[in-house]
Amino acid sequence: MAENRGVVYVGQGKVEIQSILYPKLDNPAGKKIEHGVILKVVTTNICGSDQHMVRGRTTAPSGMVLGHEITGEVLEVGKDVETLKKGDLVSVPFNVACGRCRTCKEQHTGVCLSVNPSRAGGAYGYVDMGGWIGGQAEYVMVPYADFNLLRFPDNDKAMAKIADLTCLSDILPTGYHGAVTAGVGPGTTVYVAGAGPVGLAAAASARLLGAAVIIVGDVNPVRLAHARSVGFETVDLSLDATLADQIFVILGDAEVDCAIDCVGFEARGHGHDGSQVEAPATVLNSLMEITRAAGRIGIPGLYVTDDPGAHDAAARRGSLSLRLGLGWAKSHSLHTGQTPVMKYNRQLMQAILWDKLHIADIVGVQIISLDDAPQGYGEFDAGAPKKFVIDPHGATRSR
Amino acid sequence: MAENRGVVYVGQGKVEIQSILYPKLDNPAGKKIEHGVILKVVTTNICGSDQHMVRGRTTAPSGMVLGHEITGEVLEVGKDVETLKKGDLVSVPFNVACGRCRTCKEQHTGVCLSVNPSRAGGAYGYVDMGGWIGGQAEYVMVPYADFNLLRFPDNDKAMAKIADLTCLSDILPTGYHGAVTAGVGPGTTVYVAGAGPVGLAAAASARLLGAAVIIVGDVNPVRLAHARSVGFETVDLSLDATLADQIFVILGDAEVDCAIDCVGFEARGHGHDGSQVEAPATVLNSLMEITRAAGRIGIPGLYVTDDPGAHDAAARRGSLSLRLGLGWAKSHSLHTGQTPVMKYNRQLMQAILWDKLHIADIVGVQIISLDDAPQGYGEFDAGAPKKFVIDPHGATRSR
Amino acid sequence: MAENRGVVYVGQGKVEIQSILYPKLDNPAGKKIEHGVILKVVTTNICGSDQHMVRGRTTAPSGMVLGHEITGEVLEVGKDVETLKKGDLVSVPFNVACGRCRTCKEQHTGVCLSVNPSRAGGAYGYVDMGGWIGGQAEYVMVPYADFNLLRFPDNDKAMAKIADLTCLSDILPTGYHGAVTAGVGPGTTVYVAGAGPVGLAAAASARLLGAAVIIVGDVNPVRLAHARSVGFETVDLSLDATLADQIFVILGDAEVDCAIDCVGFEARGHGHDGSQVEAPATVLNSLMEITRAAGRIGIPGLYVTDDPGAHDAAARRGSLSLRLGLGWAKSHSLHTGQTPVMKYNRQLMQAILWDKLHIADIVGVQIISLDDAPQGYGEFDAGAPKKFVIDPHGATRSR
Amino acid sequence: MAENRGVVYVGQGKVEIQSILYPKLDNPAGKKIEHGVILKVVTTNICGSDQHMVRGRTTAPSGMVLGHEITGEVLEVGKDVETLKKGDLVSVPFNVACGRCRTCKEQHTGVCLSVNPSRAGGAYGYVDMGGWIGGQAEYVMVPYADFNLLRFPDNDKAMAKIADLTCLSDILPTGYHGAVTAGVGPGTTVYVAGAGPVGLAAAASARLLGAAVIIVGDVNPVRLAHARSVGFETVDLSLDATLADQIFVILGDAEVDCAIDCVGFEARGHGHDGSQVEAPATVLNSLMEITRAAGRIGIPGLYVTDDPGAHDAAARRGSLSLRLGLGWAKSHSLHTGQTPVMKYNRQLMQAILWDKLHIADIVGVQIISLDDAPQGYGEFDAGAPKKFVIDPHGATRSR
Repeated sequence: MAENRGVVYVGQGKVEIQSILYPKLDNPAGKKIEHGVILKVVTTNICGSDQHMVRGRTTAPSGMVLGHEITGEVLEVGKDVETLKKGDLVSVPFNVACGRCRTCKEQHTGVCLSVNPSRAGGAYGYVDMGGWIGGQAEYVMVPYADFNLLRFPDNDKAMAKIADLTCLSDILPTGYHGAVTAGVGPGTTVYVAGAGPVGLAAAASARLLGAAVIIVGDVNPVRLAHARSVGFETVDLSLDATLADQIFVILGDAEVDCAIDCVGFEARGHGHDGSQVEAPATVLNSLMEITRAAGRIGIPGLYVTDDPGAHDAAARRGSLSLRLGLGWAKSHSLHTGQTPVMKYNRQLMQAILWDKLHIADIVGVQIISLDDAPQGYGEFDAGAPKKFVIDPHGATRSR
Repeated sequence: MAENRGVVYVGQGKVEIQSILYPKLDNPAGKKIEHGVILKVVTTNICGSDQHMVRGRTTAPSGMVLGHEITGEVLEVGKDVETLKKGDLVSVPFNVACGRCRTCKEQHTGVCLSVNPSRAGGAYGYVDMGGWIGGQAEYVMVPYADFNLLRFPDNDKAMAKIADLTCLSDILPTGYHGAVTAGVGPGTTVYVAGAGPVGLAAAASARLLGAAVIIVGDVNPVRLAHARSVGFETVDLSLDATLADQIFVILGDAEVDCAIDCVGFEARGHGHDGSQVEAPATVLNSLMEITRAAGRIGIPGLYVTDDPGAHDAAARRGSLSLRLGLGWAKSHSLHTGQTPVMKYNRQLMQAILWDKLHIADIVGVQIISLDDAPQGYGEFDAGAPKKFVIDPHGATRSR
Repeated sequence: MAENRGVVYVGQGKVEIQSILYPKLDNPAGKKIEHGVILKVVTTNICGSDQHMVRGRTTAPSGMVLGHEITGEVLEVGKDVETLKKGDLVSVPFNVACGRCRTCKEQHTGVCLSVNPSRAGGAYGYVDMGGWIGGQAEYVMVPYADFNLLRFPDNDKAMAKIADLTCLSDILPTGYHGAVTAGVGPGTTVYVAGAGPVGLAAAASARLLGAAVIIVGDVNPVRLAHARSVGFETVDLSLDATLADQIFVILGDAEVDCAIDCVGFEARGHGHDGSQVEAPATVLNSLMEITRAAGRIGIPGLYVTDDPGAHDAAARRGSLSLRLGLGWAKSHSLHTGQTPVMKYNRQLMQAILWDKLHIADIVGVQIISLDDAPQGYGEFDAGAPKKFVIDPHGATRSR
Repeated sequence: MAENRGVVYVGQGKVEIQSILYPKLDNPAGKKIEHGVILKVVTTNICGSDQHMVRGRTTAPSGMVLGHEITGEVLEVGKDVETLKKGDLVSVPFNVACGRCRTCKEQHTGVCLSVNPSRAGGAYGYVDMGGWIGGQAEYVMVPYADFNLLRFPDNDKAMAKIADLTCLSDILPTGYHGAVTAGVGPGTTVYVAGAGPVGLAAAASARLLGAAVIIVGDVNPVRLAHARSVGFETVDLSLDATLADQIFVILGDAEVDCAIDCVGFEARGHGHDGSQVEAPATVLNSLMEITRAAGRIGIPGLYVTDDPGAHDAAARRGSLSLRLGLGWAKSHSLHTGQTPVMKYNRQLMQAILWDKLHIADIVGVQIISLDDAPQGYGEFDAGAPKKFVIDPHGATRSR
């Protein structure tokens, strides 16, 4: 029982499955925490932001156990845990949050003030996010468990939809947060930049929120084809036609009500000439162009404070050359930051359990074994229209 | 009766009082509009954004009549006007708005879709804002008068507070919009960048909204002294101490809950070395630094789409080198754009009439004659801690 | 062209088709209004609140032309009309609103302060709502047309969906307002009291808003069967089982997140014994029972200030015996009033045009001729699961 | 150290100081709870809702220790407590809340789902609120301490303002919640029903929120005189003039923007004839009359589910004869329930510490010893314009 295996970041471009320590009810500083639980991991997803680390775009140290998208079964509970018991199936928000600080009380669990000594906000298995051990593993510890965990009401029903429910730990709430902060609601027209899993989750969220038209843009033809196959309109940014012109063809209007940046700082230049060059401000500048006056721009895509892999000094310190004057002339607002998963996951769980949202199909969930995780990292990095979900114990296959 | 005089922009750095046409109930395209009224101007204020034009930082043409901050008395009403009559005293929101388009119906009157053929949003006497004739004049025409105008309930009481009420046309709602979009409310700590009239109006608004501490920052010692004299905390950005350090001394905390950018694109570098150089991103980057996690940044300060007077190509097209990664790490939101005055002016009028807000003292209203307007432009440009208010008919002095 | 025919209220229980005056661009006081348009009525719906009048539950005078749910084609425009022209197809919000008063500017067009001298709020063809002539007719006049009317972007596409779009004038926004004020959003569980057209529109709106489960309750088996046939869960209030127990069977929980009262003051007692007796507080008391703590109750169902047909003195003056203590213990909020249609109709139109909402099927639209209107009133009063839509010119049939 | 004394409810109209048990880190079910702390009580206030119990209007059992408005010093912390230590000065929200359930996570701590087996919501020393022992005592236990307690940043500064800060546990947030839910903001006109401490706290909150005019109504002349002495307008409901007429004299308008019911179910009839008779619906019916169209009514005043002391069967089960039709005609919304103190107390603490709110003077704080508590209950019940604050250890006097 004291054995454990997990996905470990070894160095630029490389992850390995290694034996790692079995979790303890200790925080990263080594203090005993009775509010924690130990989970047997049922599913744990590979995320685009894991790729940032693996590509060497962060200061992540070699040896770090990865994984912040976790669904699990409660194995052991600390003495202060009141609402959970052995055998419960739970979704773990990727944000580690204490539930006791000012920002947590205000539902801003993405910037908890106490779980990370170096800045606001914590996460599992992520550089600079507090040192909480990652969950792409057989077992993982979750602190402040009563606060953090979302219990599924019925284990059997949950396992029957596990490929959907595994998306509750990060990607679905993240796309949803982008849509909500962009002001998506019934009858709106929506543009989503990026056809990767977050973009697709944002598009799926916009659909759940009642949007009239949802347009997804990307340069990757395979991802665009997948987006179309699950019912979204698409824009191919590798074409010569401008984004505005392509939107006009679809809507009869060159502007949308709401725009969502699901790309982030690793954006590349659009169009015929620019497609090879990284151009971090491209997405946001284009969104200000095609968002209507008084519109809002949701930015779930990650922008970093420091980017060791950037092409120039400005980008290395997280600076973008933004056409803010354009947004100002249109009274835009811009909404950034880590998603506070807990604000949304219960309601999204309900939408899944009552068959209103088939997120697994939309993001292309593919379940793989722990040993296949390194290959999943590789395929995902190459742009496969897939959301790889690791099942370390074969729990989903045995059903 | 068919005579009129007004403040005319002649060329870079120069305005003159000239004879101008007496207004007609026509829109800029020359079409008769029965929804308009002609006002005898009671007061009309000089605004910092007029200065942008006079300094040659815009494409404003020579010969333009300036003035978008107008308070007046109704002289003549069009046939479609139902709620106003000759003799009514009214405040004119600087935004020209139709009250009939989608954005107007949603209270976004700052980006009305129909009063300006070239883009969203109209204003009086302003370049690229629809061609509506300015109101730094004896008489002016206001379209869609029932919708646009705020009638004062009692003329005598209004004239007794006219130095305060004249601030309702722009500066007070603009400061207030900055405060509201920054999330200011009871008990918050607030930092206002800029101790000019908009900054002081934002600070006064924060006080009305119940803020616990209001800190105003600037490099101009006279403006800072004035800010202190009306009860605000101040930060001197010409000192070597960082903004965060100076805030810490005041609050015991290096971050505030809410931040408001009342400077805009003509910001200069802060600190010992940088104070001479224009550095348009300085303010916003510093605000992301000193705003707490999950905080909001209100941006009433003007950012432009094109700046012919800028130092480099990026700034000329309105691009800023923003550290968006820093704001993203703290889950900030940024709120830009022209203030929709009508959303706020009625309530702010009530606050003035019931003695809850003495905005004239706070922004340093000084009433001058029309002939003294050019001198007022000069003094204001030189940084005088004053809000110059032109009284073209001597209406305020005769009381 | 100067001829017109319409549905006229003759006396308790009776309506007739009569020749009526062709509309003029005059307000009810006889003043010329150049902001108005004259419409050729394309469709005009019979509403449950028309029934209140026809049943003699109001002080409606004999001779009144009925009808406030109007879709039409612009025939003639006043001189102040700027955005509409002959031939435009438009939806008319049932609220007459001026677009110039305080409440209209705040989007509360249901309580416009200037179109009705006797109280806040106006409507077409309705007792005590300002004397605006009803639109169950061949032609009708609409004032403040630029403000009030929603133009369909394409006439042909609009006529192809006219059975859906006709619901934009009242019933769909009314149901939607109930859902929005009840806090319906993705993943919520919703109870709708009443399976008539408003209840079904509320249920359809809840679906568009992403609700997880939508339960409709009524005592009428035909209406319940229709509700089930369009995909909603149902509760039969004529059974002995309590509402809470029936909800528990569906949800595994006796409480819902959101509740909507689509019945109003003519509610009857529920259950075995009470079903014959009018009991105006029944619905609201039951909603406080089955709504979760911190939940909200939307009340689009009509409650009146005076009810000449009520059974006792309290009800005659609009008093209900409410168990407010129960709601208070659960921190409920209650949201009443006429729907401000304009706040919602543009977005709902988009949802219809982009195929996200098939409201005609859900509420059971049945198109009839003007001459068949009296029969429609009778069938609707008898509880038919239909929404009768009058087509006075045969415009929908000629397609 | 194991001794304790507290205020005990003995029977109708009677409280006594008795020796009681020294608190333990146990919940009411007797289970050890390491998330709790034991406080030395610094101040603990007598509340109007305590009076409901003492008057025999509830089913409170004899022997119950009273007191839910508590400010204290941390003496002992459980093992799970992370953010508090011995010596910290803290304010205790009157709501007992777990911080781990759905409603707590949504900031609805007034209806916590887990601290009270019989219904949503818990409190200290209150009938039917979960059995948590009251704090009108020398020592008290507070569970979920990291979540529930608000720590003052500086003990000395806090003790210097302790008469103000003691109001943070209930009365100030309760008045503030009433004002916020009624929509009070800058420039609004506000009517507060009831000049007792909650009414005065609501009025003080309205002032902090920037209201233009604040009118307090009552029948008690001493309370009205006190309200005037702290700067509010007043209405004397014992006069023949109607409430609307008296408001008109003050405002020139018979309606206010916002209304707050700070009376609750023990309201008496107004006016010449009715002043002797209890009439629970009086207040709310009058508020619907004098609140503007589209206005909101905040109801912090307590309404109960069962009232054994009521005059008739309807009132005994918490039913009121409400003129809901009147509110419906004006599109009112009604906002009920226990205040979620934690949503507001941090910001209100800041307002106090930075001298923006002198609540002690406004509500008439009078500090008394524990032994004088029974006398305080008597004087308060007789209508003294005082807020009695018990100082069981003489901590405030020793300063």
